[in-house]
Amino acid sequence: MGGRDTRGKVRMAAVGSIGLDTIETPFEKRGELLGGSITYACAAASFFTTAGMVGIVGDDFPPEYTALYRSFGIDLAGLARVPGRTFRWSGVYDADMINRRTLSTELNVFETFSPVIPEAYRDVPFLLLGNISPALQLNVLAQVRRPKFVVADTMDLWINIARDDLMRVIGKVNLLTLNDGEARLLTGLYNLRQCARKILDWGPPYVVIKKGEHGAMLFSKAGIFLVPAYPVEAVKDPTGAGDCFAGAFLGALAGGGSVTPAHVRTALLCGSAVASFGVEDFSLGRLQTLKRRDIERRLAELRRMTRV
Amino acid sequence: MGGRDTRGKVRMAAVGSIGLDTIETPFEKRGELLGGSITYACAAASFFTTAGMVGIVGDDFPPEYTALYRSFGIDLAGLARVPGRTFRWSGVYDADMINRRTLSTELNVFETFSPVIPEAYRDVPFLLLGNISPALQLNVLAQVRRPKFVVADTMDLWINIARDDLMRVIGKVNLLTLNDGEARLLTGLYNLRQCARKILDWGPPYVVIKKGEHGAMLFSKAGIFLVPAYPVEAVKDPTGAGDCFAGAFLGALAGGGSVTPAHVRTALLCGSAVASFGVEDFSLGRLQTLKRRDIERRLAELRRMTRV
Repeated sequence: MGGRDTRGKVRMAAVGSIGLDTIETPFEKRGELLGGSITYACAAASFFTTAGMVGIVGDDFPPEYTALYRSFGIDLAGLARVPGRTFRWSGVYDADMINRRTLSTELNVFETFSPVIPEAYRDVPFLLLGNISPALQLNVLAQVRRPKFVVADTMDLWINIARDDLMRVIGKVNLLTLNDGEARLLTGLYNLRQCARKILDWGPPYVVIKKGEHGAMLFSKAGIFLVPAYPVEAVKDPTGAGDCFAGAFLGALAGGGSVTPAHVRTALLCGSAVASFGVEDFSLGRLQTLKRRDIERRLAELRRMTRV
Repeated sequence: MGGRDTRGKVRMAAVGSIGLDTIETPFEKRGELLGGSITYACAAASFFTTAGMVGIVGDDFPPEYTALYRSFGIDLAGLARVPGRTFRWSGVYDADMINRRTLSTELNVFETFSPVIPEAYRDVPFLLLGNISPALQLNVLAQVRRPKFVVADTMDLWINIARDDLMRVIGKVNLLTLNDGEARLLTGLYNLRQCARKILDWGPPYVVIKKGEHGAMLFSKAGIFLVPAYPVEAVKDPTGAGDCFAGAFLGALAGGGSVTPAHVRTALLCGSAVASFGVEDFSLGRLQTLKRRDIERRLAELRRMTRV
């Protein structure tokens, strides 16, 4: 794992949504927050590697948010700014701070998003296909040359309306990440081991099933790794936790360079650690002040908490 | 951890319910099954130590079930057989095999249960206070001389109707075990770390919060241990999983003898392993054929699944 480097060559690219979120928790309501899958993923990755984002915003996108991306050392060559309004999402969390209800989704400029991978990213070794339509994910895959490790995320919507394309994506990536409910929906099975076995049979060498506050499970032909979740005491906003997890995971893998089973496990622990910080504040609030030594301390804590 | 020994001195006693269960899962319905908290706990403990049960059954209790207890090497000096019908419980599991609904509870002879600790158990070093009323748990505590390690289980009913007595129990035991919902009900807090801190402040050096299929968490002044759950592929009946967990944990601790933080962690892993076998069949079905080497194999698997 390398330190945060704002000038390095882009080792990892992430394609997905950028949005302005309005979020209501039992304790607080906040609007026009910087959100979206690659916002969280690239910020989380930035602690380990140089990440580039491929996304779209409208001309109302606050310049201070662009500056914030830069402060994380995120490369913005793939960030398109077009006339119109930025994607907006609003949701409200239950008392458990886990279940949430979407109040509104305005696609705005995101509706016409057709990701263009900048020339500088075409040889990028690590690629994160955030939660966009499988057709767009395929389109991105066609634009990169020989990526070393590709992670794809998905969601119930695509499982329901674009299963054929999604299956094509699944057949081309190294790791599929999805949550427990999505794994069940995708496979028609209930038991998560059975779900994972079916997905592995479709091609990807790795499947990560996320279980929110209960951690995640990595499945591969080599076996299972139970990824612990750090027990966070003060969850302020769980939005983006899964994206932080995926981003920090792939960032740590990119920062390390080689992809061995041991590296994959260590990188997943990094994902878990950074995600646990991410939920301690709204948007990138906690990640903004986060230091590499904080992450290392939490990683050490996670290891102590799981060591027999 | 010693091997199963049917003739050893009783090192651990467990007080709680013995019942005949009728259980319906989405796949199967079975009646008159041997159940109850100490049935599971003592059978699970028997792989590590000599356990004695303190419980009550009616004169309808099938002799083959007494023989089954003996086949596990369980000491029956504290098993009272009285005129009347044995405690009966029936419940139905949801499709997720986790949530369940109680259809009926017939206390029968269990209603008049007043546990008497046989003279041979009064110096027992390891004691499990199963999920009976806190008043009875206190009564049992008064009958044992200087136990080395006492575990108490409880449930929502006692939290709601017998809180004062329950608080007295909590102040006298070494470890309180309860599930996440019960921990929240007991403390009025949501976050499990905060719940645990409050309970630790009430006296017990250890608290174990169970999260079903997601494992458990051990809290103590020394820190947190995340107890992994083995991902079982074919759950047939989850009834008694928590009792198997507690019984195998305390049995492993009793079998080892000394109670160090490292022993507690290892014993919790034993609890998790035996519980994962327990749910693979109804009643004691799977434990009956279980061998010590099966447990050791699963323990090794659990260690591999959590090792970075």
